[in-house]
Amino acid sequence: MASLSDLPIRDDLRGLTPYGAPQKHVRYALNVNENTHPIPEAVARDIVTSLAHAVLTANRYPDREFTALRESLADYLGHGLTREHVWAANGSNEIIQQLLQAFGGPGRRVLGFPPTYSMHPIITAGVGSTWVTAERDADFEIGPETAVRAIERHTPDLVFLCAPNNPTGTGLSLETIAAAYDATDGIVFVDEAYAEFMPKDRPTALTLLPGRERLVVSRTMSKAFAFAGVRVGYLAADPVIADALRLVRLPYHLSALTQAAAVAALAHTPEMLAMVDDIIGQRDRIIAELPELGYRPWASEANFVLFDGVDDPQATFNALLERDILIRDVGISNALRVTAGTAAETEFFLRSLAELGPGGAR
Amino acid sequence: MASLSDLPIRDDLRGLTPYGAPQKHVRYALNVNENTHPIPEAVARDIVTSLAHAVLTANRYPDREFTALRESLADYLGHGLTREHVWAANGSNEIIQQLLQAFGGPGRRVLGFPPTYSMHPIITAGVGSTWVTAERDADFEIGPETAVRAIERHTPDLVFLCAPNNPTGTGLSLETIAAAYDATDGIVFVDEAYAEFMPKDRPTALTLLPGRERLVVSRTMSKAFAFAGVRVGYLAADPVIADALRLVRLPYHLSALTQAAAVAALAHTPEMLAMVDDIIGQRDRIIAELPELGYRPWASEANFVLFDGVDDPQATFNALLERDILIRDVGISNALRVTAGTAAETEFFLRSLAELGPGGAR
Repeated sequence: MASLSDLPIRDDLRGLTPYGAPQKHVRYALNVNENTHPIPEAVARDIVTSLAHAVLTANRYPDREFTALRESLADYLGHGLTREHVWAANGSNEIIQQLLQAFGGPGRRVLGFPPTYSMHPIITAGVGSTWVTAERDADFEIGPETAVRAIERHTPDLVFLCAPNNPTGTGLSLETIAAAYDATDGIVFVDEAYAEFMPKDRPTALTLLPGRERLVVSRTMSKAFAFAGVRVGYLAADPVIADALRLVRLPYHLSALTQAAAVAALAHTPEMLAMVDDIIGQRDRIIAELPELGYRPWASEANFVLFDGVDDPQATFNALLERDILIRDVGISNALRVTAGTAAETEFFLRSLAELGPGGAR
Repeated sequence: MASLSDLPIRDDLRGLTPYGAPQKHVRYALNVNENTHPIPEAVARDIVTSLAHAVLTANRYPDREFTALRESLADYLGHGLTREHVWAANGSNEIIQQLLQAFGGPGRRVLGFPPTYSMHPIITAGVGSTWVTAERDADFEIGPETAVRAIERHTPDLVFLCAPNNPTGTGLSLETIAAAYDATDGIVFVDEAYAEFMPKDRPTALTLLPGRERLVVSRTMSKAFAFAGVRVGYLAADPVIADALRLVRLPYHLSALTQAAAVAALAHTPEMLAMVDDIIGQRDRIIAELPELGYRPWASEANFVLFDGVDDPQATFNALLERDILIRDVGISNALRVTAGTAAETEFFLRSLAELGPGGAR
């Protein structure tokens, strides 16, 4: 039986282990910030009808320009965007990879502000770019001066911001994004995977797009649209960004099934997004009740809550898993992250955590 | 309006144009070697049922290890392969990209034998590897000595073989593959996208896998399985190859819809492959009749035919397009490539070509 060391694998991959959030079958899966509400039945029926049509011509390659999908996404985003401003891929991971293939690659630097989405440094390394990091301000915030100082020090080719940030839930101001843009000649990438869960008075980075051709704002259908299984990430930017991505994307990267399912779902935006307000309510309840159990949650603008005050995160993770609840140890001392789902899930999570006593399991 | 030159795009991408086989709506689309037979209705119904189940849980991330799909693919391939030997991705393009990310990357060399699949050099450049080439023998064949000599001269990190070769249809002997393997310490990649159309007495490179952990054989469901729209490429190799690809694949790269549709189709392998014999019949008819029109077709083990003797390939391409037939100018002097489809398509193509007169349009 051969082992990896027998193979002529790239040197920088030797000794690495693959990305691996556990995929366990539990009753309460609150670990990867999925939308725990299934797609509403009436919408699911329309999606299946749309898929049935797509299967009839699945012997043909799909529309390489996924024009109908880009139109639906532009309509959904609003802000005067058209299909020319929009690009999509198999999850926002692939969006990030294509962006790095076009604007990163060997010898280029990507600046991030950890703790942040764990795939950002992994995909950066995958294309041969260097991941450089800078500190955040207190409570995981990034003020305009902090962003500008980091850019001046590292002179990165791409700046990665995550708004709201995963795994902390922290919001990001437009002032910081605009200041970062002015401080660099590189690409400024704002990952808005959780944008639909932001407070109504928090403007999206989409409002900054006009006149900023190096600004890229990505979104996903995985969270608000309950579409993690379908793998649809997308971005909005100056149309020239899509021209650049056409040079590196694999032809026909979006299947006919993906395109059909996403277009059908976007035609039901109001029903699909009806779950978002429920989830925001559960998130706010978790934030309100955790202090009563002795934990300190951080403010969150996403569908999850990071909380401090856990004596032994691994022990509490395991104790909850024994109760059929899967949450996430994101490697921050004394902290754990939980996804906000349904009322029943919140209830069971909070009750189980309370049963572990102050500070959690040991 | 910004232009690409305003953006900090990678230097090696400047001035490139994207891959772009024309996607025109014509009655006879014989240009990208699709299976022109739609999926049989009874099979399509089962696929849709399977998709309907997948949509019910599409709010969750898909099985990152796509275990059921790998099992179905291993069963289909036979040759004692198990799911541990199999890996899949969104089309064989993504298989190639992942393989190059793991074993290629900046500073490494990939050896190919043009004319061959046009995406091989493009994906190689996309990961920062260098594409080096060697000549084929007469009639696009590659004998063992030719392969070994090229490997000794170029000392590549990966050797790309295409069996049967696209765009020429040429078969490849196991002797050449085995000799190439023995001549290199690198990865030997055999692209068998069209394997199901090979003569029954042509053994697949799968038979060479035991004991050769650096040999990778890729397949696709796009051609024989009429699944181009669903985007399923896969490979068989020593299980350690999948371990290497887990380090570079984007997590959850295969959607729940892709997995469900492919598993359902593979459960109907006999019906899905019933079309293959028809297509082989059409291919052989094209090869038999083209000489009567004054053209010289090359031998083909795939679902397409490359033929010589075209005075002006672009003019003949355009003249056929006016008749609602799309074929492919693959950049080989005096040659064009046509996909073998249904009997009606063969009939109309041959009749139209005959109407253009000897040597085609001018």
